[in-house]
Amino acid sequence: MALTDPDRLFPAEPALRGLARELYEGIADLPIISPHGHCDPRWFAENARFPNPAELFVVPDHYVFRMLVSQGVPLTDLGVPRVDGGATESDPRLIWRRFAENFHLFRGTPSSMWLNHSFEHVFGIDIPLNADTADTYYDHIDGKLAEEAFRPRALFERFNIEALATTEGALDDLSAHRAIRDSGWGGRVITTYRPDSVVDPEFEGFAENIEKLAEITGEPATTWEGYLAAHRKRRAYFKEFGATASDHGHATARTEDLPQEVAAELFQKALAGTCTGEEADAFRGHMLTEMARMSLDDGLTLQIHAGSWRNHSAPVFAAHGRDKGFDIPMRTDYVGALKPLLDAVGMEPDLTVILFTLDETVYGRELAPLAGAYPALRLGPPWWFFDSAEGIRRFREATTETCGFYNTAGFNDDTRAFCSIPARHDVARRSDCAYLATLVATGRLAEADAPEVAHDLTYGLAKAAYNL
Amino acid sequence: MALTDPDRLFPAEPALRGLARELYEGIADLPIISPHGHCDPRWFAENARFPNPAELFVVPDHYVFRMLVSQGVPLTDLGVPRVDGGATESDPRLIWRRFAENFHLFRGTPSSMWLNHSFEHVFGIDIPLNADTADTYYDHIDGKLAEEAFRPRALFERFNIEALATTEGALDDLSAHRAIRDSGWGGRVITTYRPDSVVDPEFEGFAENIEKLAEITGEPATTWEGYLAAHRKRRAYFKEFGATASDHGHATARTEDLPQEVAAELFQKALAGTCTGEEADAFRGHMLTEMARMSLDDGLTLQIHAGSWRNHSAPVFAAHGRDKGFDIPMRTDYVGALKPLLDAVGMEPDLTVILFTLDETVYGRELAPLAGAYPALRLGPPWWFFDSAEGIRRFREATTETCGFYNTAGFNDDTRAFCSIPARHDVARRSDCAYLATLVATGRLAEADAPEVAHDLTYGLAKAAYNL
Amino acid sequence: MALTDPDRLFPAEPALRGLARELYEGIADLPIISPHGHCDPRWFAENARFPNPAELFVVPDHYVFRMLVSQGVPLTDLGVPRVDGGATESDPRLIWRRFAENFHLFRGTPSSMWLNHSFEHVFGIDIPLNADTADTYYDHIDGKLAEEAFRPRALFERFNIEALATTEGALDDLSAHRAIRDSGWGGRVITTYRPDSVVDPEFEGFAENIEKLAEITGEPATTWEGYLAAHRKRRAYFKEFGATASDHGHATARTEDLPQEVAAELFQKALAGTCTGEEADAFRGHMLTEMARMSLDDGLTLQIHAGSWRNHSAPVFAAHGRDKGFDIPMRTDYVGALKPLLDAVGMEPDLTVILFTLDETVYGRELAPLAGAYPALRLGPPWWFFDSAEGIRRFREATTETCGFYNTAGFNDDTRAFCSIPARHDVARRSDCAYLATLVATGRLAEADAPEVAHDLTYGLAKAAYNL
Repeated sequence: MALTDPDRLFPAEPALRGLARELYEGIADLPIISPHGHCDPRWFAENARFPNPAELFVVPDHYVFRMLVSQGVPLTDLGVPRVDGGATESDPRLIWRRFAENFHLFRGTPSSMWLNHSFEHVFGIDIPLNADTADTYYDHIDGKLAEEAFRPRALFERFNIEALATTEGALDDLSAHRAIRDSGWGGRVITTYRPDSVVDPEFEGFAENIEKLAEITGEPATTWEGYLAAHRKRRAYFKEFGATASDHGHATARTEDLPQEVAAELFQKALAGTCTGEEADAFRGHMLTEMARMSLDDGLTLQIHAGSWRNHSAPVFAAHGRDKGFDIPMRTDYVGALKPLLDAVGMEPDLTVILFTLDETVYGRELAPLAGAYPALRLGPPWWFFDSAEGIRRFREATTETCGFYNTAGFNDDTRAFCSIPARHDVARRSDCAYLATLVATGRLAEADAPEVAHDLTYGLAKAAYNL
Repeated sequence: MALTDPDRLFPAEPALRGLARELYEGIADLPIISPHGHCDPRWFAENARFPNPAELFVVPDHYVFRMLVSQGVPLTDLGVPRVDGGATESDPRLIWRRFAENFHLFRGTPSSMWLNHSFEHVFGIDIPLNADTADTYYDHIDGKLAEEAFRPRALFERFNIEALATTEGALDDLSAHRAIRDSGWGGRVITTYRPDSVVDPEFEGFAENIEKLAEITGEPATTWEGYLAAHRKRRAYFKEFGATASDHGHATARTEDLPQEVAAELFQKALAGTCTGEEADAFRGHMLTEMARMSLDDGLTLQIHAGSWRNHSAPVFAAHGRDKGFDIPMRTDYVGALKPLLDAVGMEPDLTVILFTLDETVYGRELAPLAGAYPALRLGPPWWFFDSAEGIRRFREATTETCGFYNTAGFNDDTRAFCSIPARHDVARRSDCAYLATLVATGRLAEADAPEVAHDLTYGLAKAAYNL
Repeated sequence: MALTDPDRLFPAEPALRGLARELYEGIADLPIISPHGHCDPRWFAENARFPNPAELFVVPDHYVFRMLVSQGVPLTDLGVPRVDGGATESDPRLIWRRFAENFHLFRGTPSSMWLNHSFEHVFGIDIPLNADTADTYYDHIDGKLAEEAFRPRALFERFNIEALATTEGALDDLSAHRAIRDSGWGGRVITTYRPDSVVDPEFEGFAENIEKLAEITGEPATTWEGYLAAHRKRRAYFKEFGATASDHGHATARTEDLPQEVAAELFQKALAGTCTGEEADAFRGHMLTEMARMSLDDGLTLQIHAGSWRNHSAPVFAAHGRDKGFDIPMRTDYVGALKPLLDAVGMEPDLTVILFTLDETVYGRELAPLAGAYPALRLGPPWWFFDSAEGIRRFREATTETCGFYNTAGFNDDTRAFCSIPARHDVARRSDCAYLATLVATGRLAEADAPEVAHDLTYGLAKAAYNL
């Protein structure tokens, strides 16, 4: 018995299934391009063993533990740390058992597919996880984790990852990336420039962050010109560690292109902590356009991740902090929001701005029409809740007719769950092949063209969009 | 010839169809749990015959007659009563003929499926309804209605209904429910607490309604504390007649969690009729949180039905009043709207708040992420215009990947058309089995798990969500 | 080898495909009703040859050239005229080559299906277009265009067009339509009344346009009463040239039903150029209701095309003007927006108002519930980015269950690309038959009823909605 169906995610109709399988076979073994994610670079710097099954699969993955929480399991029972440092479950085996006995909650979800894929294809397990098999699973995985072959670098190579981007804040010294480079290990793990903490006037400690930015860069970062120069230096520093992109996680997609003196004035208010909410928002929006202008110079691809109401539950945030599964998508506008940036730089053929959304209604209505016109725009893949079979299908069906395939940017896994990377890319590859097979079978794509498109969606478009 | 296809709503692909049929056979005969609807409890109290085919199928069902209206048939020609008491068509046979000759308007709609199901499976008819067969139909159905076996209680038993909830206003004396109980009949017909008229400052006669509430409960309901106590008493009274839930039909999903003194002040303004629109809205929103707190004490499940612009046509409302097919869905926000309630009680594992929507765009973007995190939340089934084959498919496809099956609450028929109850539950069962079959065939759900999920969706989840 | 699959757009499952094909065969050869589009009436007045392949397929079709622009091809390289009259590519063969070498960008889009359909079925080509075949294509098509059989009237007849509506502004003298009429040619090419330039206070030259309106009609059009009378005269004039409809391309669907004196006052402000943005919007909205009232008198069908942010890119608009592929859909409200008009005339069975949208989220939530209730409303087909296989499927799936087929208005091609007309209608016919086949196979539509519905969707409903 296997946990995963070899024909999973292919259409059920036999002729379609055959077409999809054939396309998939042509691209299944391509290396993984992972240009956006949240793996910890220290894994590859230190190459230490992963501590135990619970800390590999449950505790750090809010995709996973929030589902148990939604059915009444307290966060503390799952070992999720408390802000006050108070007690939480510390026995990984107990955490694992709670996970196992609730594994039915994941039926029909991509999480169950990713987890079963990891269990079977990474750890060689072929029995279903449940309360009865919890300990067998725990012992088996824990045993494997002790082996050399299950250390981060070995898995990276086994996963056939050609390039993996992590994400670091603008003030990060990139010591882990330096350690990887200095180690002489050949894996390509690169960083991404994420300047939210020095771009968002409402970020905790904004003024101090700017002080630190000045210190690190030697630029007078508390003046507007010095501030922009400091960004340029940090971007150059990140590029030394492989960065080919910046990433911006704003609540909305708002952009502005303010006169320099207005931007400079807002910046001073931001430093003084006197921005109104509206002014802070305008400043964040303006900085996206500044970043795009810097991208024109240094070639970094600009990623805009918009639309999440972070830390929606006040009590959960107070008790456990960020990233606990309580980030909820919001309705998001792009048409008006992006106009200032697009009027400034949208027609530049050498700029790449990748748009992500958590609001699927904008695929066909806003994003595909924009990407189907502006040379600077590319559509990022379905993100977060939507990098799933249905999510990918809806994305392709809603965007392809308007902007085609070549205004999209391949797949991102966006994950901090290392073992799920092959599973997630596999889901994307299968889902895309299922879509292409449907187009071929219904006369919407020439059969002769489909393998090339499959290759582009899997490999070529991500490399191009991220200059990898 | 039959009016209904034995394989209706199953996927066309033979292997998928086989899987769906097999799953369906395992749950087709389960009893009906109908935890939310609008049947008249007097039917079961009095057990009188239904008057005639037109009054059974056409006149009271705005799902049905609005379609004829949309093509130019006047409401008065269909016997829909006028506010001024003026003349409307009074010959049920003429109404039936108008309905029959326009039956093609329902092609492709769930109404046609429900009606044909009733015609065939309740009344044993196997010829299509049209102008030619109108009188044959009328005579046949009218004849059946005269039989004992077609009285409400007999049909209730034949429909295999295990529990049927009706909906009564907070001031209702529940005399019909009392009569059912006193009759000794074994059918489980229960009430639901619907306090809109004493919770909404803009409801007609709000202040008088509160006076009545005081009178009924013996509480000083014109004081804030007395008002809350009166609610508690009425909820207890409704529980005596089986209520396991309250229901709240607000235009939006707005909630508030105001300081008690602010709420008390708004309540006094509401009594004085001096609330602004905004204040009335805030008060309604606050009362949802108060109701949720009462639910923590008395265990009633809280249902929020949001998003309908009631009585959209001013002339139709003036001429014919409420519930005439002119309630139109609106764009509805949940993420910001529910935050006050969720911050107050969302993490309570012993509370059940069921969310309904008429805005399908929120399934994946808002509702599933919320229900996939907060223990107190469950998603109600597709509602009103959307309890249909496509509606159910979209609901499952958009929610399952994010919140799974176990954060949903089974099916509701929400109907006042008694004969359509088995048809509607059958549509839900078939649609769910079609979805599950697709998951199995595409490797997203283990075949061994599917029958249990089908059983849960049909029976277990509704019983659990409504404490039935 | 063929460029088009004879079974394109039919479902892949063999039984479904057979059903769809059978339905399609019953309606494939019906004449084309094209009640809304943007062909140039001078083509049929003058019957001159189309100049060359680039000016037939690329230069005038922003559906097509924007895709090349989105990948960095400058508009000027494609021969798109500049506002300043400056140089652009003038060699049609070079333009054609750029188009050919980028033809892969259209993979999976309806554009590729329309273009391949034209290449194969209009021009008899059976090899794929790409850089290698560019010149062969060019020479072949250019040769054909020189033949009598490829002149506009001959193609019109060969395309089996029963009626084709063009769109002219209110001030147009309709000389091309007069020339067609005077020519004695039998093709039915009719006009449509499009009064945006004399209804929208923010239209360039509004006051002068009203002066012209006065001049043309002999009415004192700068008074409110004279202005309405002038509209009535122009509508009558357009009716002389076959018009059966008016068309209104507003940014939103806002309507108003203001007291006459308020409307008159706004009109004077509009003439004086002193309207605020809100007042201009209110005036536009009010004029929709006035137009609807005129329709009650003269029988013109009223079309509302809402939801496009025109000329989104400021630099592209400055350099190249309108209609350059940079019109982007916006979120659009209908429920509140249409209420004033619907309260005024929505219950009139003799009025037809056809609603179009670029916001697919409103299909099920707003438009179908409205059209399923108000006798005056019909739903226009999926429009612009959405008259495609997926767009039509989503439209049918989201609307049919709520408003049925008979509250929809058949298909519009809405195109200025003459050769694509048969292709577009063919896509609609195939997509509708695929949908109907699915309904039949899943027991949602009687097999006996399906051919009649297919005929209605293809032919009957458009003729009825537009009084053709």
